[in-house]
Amino acid sequence: MHRFVLAAKQAAASLGCRSPGGGGNNTALRCATSLAVGRPPRGPRLPRPAREGTVRWSSAAKASAVKINEKASREKILTLESMNPLVKALEYAVRGPIVLKAGEIEKELRKGIKKPFTEVIKANIGDAHAMGQRPITFLRQVVALCTYPNLLDSPSFPEDAKKRARRILQGCGGNSLGSYTASPGINCIREDVASYIERRDGGVPADPDNIYLTTGASDGITTILKILVSGGGKSRTGVMIPIPQYPLYSAAISDLDAVQVNYYLDEENCWALDVNELRRSLKEAKAYCNPKVLCIINPGNPTGQVQNRKCTEDVIHFAWEEKLFLLADEVYQDNVHSEGCQFHSFKKILYEMGPEYYNNVELASFHSTSKGYMGECGYRGGYMEVLNLHPEIKGQLVKLLSVRLCAPVSGQAAMDVVVNPPIPGEESYSQFIKEKESVLNNLAKKAKLTEDMFNKIPGMHCNPLQGAMYAFPRIFIPSKAIEEAKVHKMAPDMFYCMKLLEETGICVVPGSGFGQREGSYHLRMTILPPAEKLKILLEKMKDFHIKFLEKYA
Amino acid sequence: MHRFVLAAKQAAASLGCRSPGGGGNNTALRCATSLAVGRPPRGPRLPRPAREGTVRWSSAAKASAVKINEKASREKILTLESMNPLVKALEYAVRGPIVLKAGEIEKELRKGIKKPFTEVIKANIGDAHAMGQRPITFLRQVVALCTYPNLLDSPSFPEDAKKRARRILQGCGGNSLGSYTASPGINCIREDVASYIERRDGGVPADPDNIYLTTGASDGITTILKILVSGGGKSRTGVMIPIPQYPLYSAAISDLDAVQVNYYLDEENCWALDVNELRRSLKEAKAYCNPKVLCIINPGNPTGQVQNRKCTEDVIHFAWEEKLFLLADEVYQDNVHSEGCQFHSFKKILYEMGPEYYNNVELASFHSTSKGYMGECGYRGGYMEVLNLHPEIKGQLVKLLSVRLCAPVSGQAAMDVVVNPPIPGEESYSQFIKEKESVLNNLAKKAKLTEDMFNKIPGMHCNPLQGAMYAFPRIFIPSKAIEEAKVHKMAPDMFYCMKLLEETGICVVPGSGFGQREGSYHLRMTILPPAEKLKILLEKMKDFHIKFLEKYA
Repeated sequence: MHRFVLAAKQAAASLGCRSPGGGGNNTALRCATSLAVGRPPRGPRLPRPAREGTVRWSSAAKASAVKINEKASREKILTLESMNPLVKALEYAVRGPIVLKAGEIEKELRKGIKKPFTEVIKANIGDAHAMGQRPITFLRQVVALCTYPNLLDSPSFPEDAKKRARRILQGCGGNSLGSYTASPGINCIREDVASYIERRDGGVPADPDNIYLTTGASDGITTILKILVSGGGKSRTGVMIPIPQYPLYSAAISDLDAVQVNYYLDEENCWALDVNELRRSLKEAKAYCNPKVLCIINPGNPTGQVQNRKCTEDVIHFAWEEKLFLLADEVYQDNVHSEGCQFHSFKKILYEMGPEYYNNVELASFHSTSKGYMGECGYRGGYMEVLNLHPEIKGQLVKLLSVRLCAPVSGQAAMDVVVNPPIPGEESYSQFIKEKESVLNNLAKKAKLTEDMFNKIPGMHCNPLQGAMYAFPRIFIPSKAIEEAKVHKMAPDMFYCMKLLEETGICVVPGSGFGQREGSYHLRMTILPPAEKLKILLEKMKDFHIKFLEKYA
Repeated sequence: MHRFVLAAKQAAASLGCRSPGGGGNNTALRCATSLAVGRPPRGPRLPRPAREGTVRWSSAAKASAVKINEKASREKILTLESMNPLVKALEYAVRGPIVLKAGEIEKELRKGIKKPFTEVIKANIGDAHAMGQRPITFLRQVVALCTYPNLLDSPSFPEDAKKRARRILQGCGGNSLGSYTASPGINCIREDVASYIERRDGGVPADPDNIYLTTGASDGITTILKILVSGGGKSRTGVMIPIPQYPLYSAAISDLDAVQVNYYLDEENCWALDVNELRRSLKEAKAYCNPKVLCIINPGNPTGQVQNRKCTEDVIHFAWEEKLFLLADEVYQDNVHSEGCQFHSFKKILYEMGPEYYNNVELASFHSTSKGYMGECGYRGGYMEVLNLHPEIKGQLVKLLSVRLCAPVSGQAAMDVVVNPPIPGEESYSQFIKEKESVLNNLAKKAKLTEDMFNKIPGMHCNPLQGAMYAFPRIFIPSKAIEEAKVHKMAPDMFYCMKLLEETGICVVPGSGFGQREGSYHLRMTILPPAEKLKILLEKMKDFHIKFLEKYA
């Protein structure tokens, strides 16, 4: 008999508790006095599994264990009350309550429970492959070659892919993707990123030493924010973010106990950023915090707006003037749909504004393998480029990155292909460019289709989807529905989206998850499903919305 | 002329500052009054790059820009003073100052600077592939098949690898490694992890719902610690960690502003854990914090000790009695070298202690693809298994994990192969088992070799390397050397290791990076270099140590 069990038995016996017989499965014995003396009471023995092998609990034994669990439980150490309050307060709508509900509904469908629909459409998250987009062949060839270098001898792989794979592997310890890399990332990939940035920005120089390979852009953004946040009370760091925003920002700010400072994008003007609004926001914020950081998402998420050159200059001048650290989230730089819109990186515009700006504004810019034409979310590939960081701060940055050792190396390899794709003359070029253009043209078509179809729905208005991969239409929710939402203790647009999910199987994220002006409601839907499916989706949303308006008229 | 530059020019002119002529490269104009009115002075124009193409700065222009940078700089927003003090305080010795120094020396070697050695040996980090260990063929085959599914049609890949790849891909959105997965990880992989745990633990049941796939074990450990830490002042959460420890723990505790509570492992007793020392540590800690968490590393890092069954039972009883949340870091579970030592998971021992323990003790156990026989550090694959977490806490955990979306999917795939390897009868089994045993036997041999060779060095003592992949010998440092270290403002063992690095090229981590009893000094060296190289290394260390003792006699 286990020695602790023996001690408990003796303790129980000495207190006059009923002592069960020898081993085997006895019914549970609860002896409060045993607990009081600090020894565990002699509870029922769980079936002893065989030392080796695959003995499984019988369902009876499992049920018995569950009952024991309920009976034997004492107060837990880790509870909602005792946990980290910052984590408790944190929210991330993109995978929040509506998505949990969608998961439950999917389970029910699998069990055969009848619904008004046969599948849940997950239009909540910017995940292109999940919606049927194919990976770029060349990218996967290079990563496969790096993964299993025997393939370097295979005639089925093109030479240009092999060349890149060899270069990456040479940068890896032991020529293996399985080695840790230096914490800022593999050097030759940082160099390739720098070259990419220079080409993209028409020759504006980029220093590989200012480039850090990260676990998706999220890792870079949260790392920089972490270093920036300090102070307490009214000196607590304020971080300016767009409303609506991608809720990584609010989550990170919440997590760091920093202060979220909202500036509103202008819905009447295609979600443009107005510097006067930045000024308004900053002025008010100074009363209760120390605003130090200005976050820009361009192209925008969820709004998709693409900043024009003048707007970016105005923002840079504002940041320069007000001494704000600039974060430029540019993960959708390859996703520009509207003619007349063009992506200009913050770095490039900053350079063109001359040395007083270029040598002083502290800037961190972010990119990722998750969006664009690649859609490689699962690889968690990304980079950040910093500018004008104090050298000692760069040392602190590397130190902080070193605790997680390095970004996943297969993701670093994927990022390398993104910044070092096939060029004209190379064997893989024509297939590559065909695949890339197909994805981007398709997205642009769906952007227009979605905008048009939403705008045909009475009680909905959708700004042009200038870029990114989302529609963020405004939805007019009747007062009766707002009242009923209150009864259910939900935000009105959450109530709307829950009903939409329950009646159509379409999962989108309510605007309250991203932020919006008081009294306005929106939803974010991705445009990633194939065009035919998207049309059906939009038709269903139209039908739902009309019914909803009628019901709550 | 750029409109901001024009405004600045006008401002400068109105203040009577010398106004340079039109465009082109003018020498820098510093006008303090211009700065005072808040407009950037008209500085020299940087060469305007071509709109498209690969225009590069001439070296003269670059030099000019650097000078401008020095002249035009103003006080930065992000400095050592303004940054997050928690980040500033954070340390991670495994990639700390000694490794930075090693990197500098490598640069010098590449430049052709003569040294007493031709290469730097990075024996500081547990990175097997970097030291020449080969990946497990089967693992890389499965991951390559998942990466580039065209290979599923290739005759060069065995059917058992293809079967696993298909299963993994079916669990991925769009059958692609590029999709985000559910935040806890791909379901079928969580199931495979649960099956692995059950087999490993002789049938003790594991619930896939209690399993989370993480970005290396580090991600799981820091996530759980983050949720656990709360309170302020004397109620601040205390986290008990072994001394010596793997400095992820101290870094995470520092980062969370939690309280580090040290318990000392017993060097006289092969680094064993003594529950009396746990009691001593806890009792003292209650005076200044709220100790809530007990971290165990088994097999140990850096010490390599493998806990025996009784020790683990004692620890579990202590945690149960004192209401401590148990973290069991078991990433070296496949690395047990000493005969007479065996790995017993905390989960298994907990189960065998009966329901009062098994249904109550809150436990999180961690594993990884980085160590063992796999050495797949770069994939950042890992999992944690939780037990007896409050259901609402599990919801909070998933919420926190969702902000980073998911662990890298190629790492999840690698983890799947680790828990679902070839079995007898499968085509790949014999090669797999050969490779696995070769790695593990080799490590065990090197463990013994290293222990023996260190113990032959006068002034060194090395406990048996029962497990893991490090030697942590005690080094006796003469008082004269301790004095000189003080002069250099270094810990004595850092001083020793720096000298070792400078004179032999061998990079190891001083014991002060892991913690040690006051007045004792150690260093941590990996046993990963190939046996022949390891012998040479150890000979060099012997020569160095003898010279060191003589020099500072």
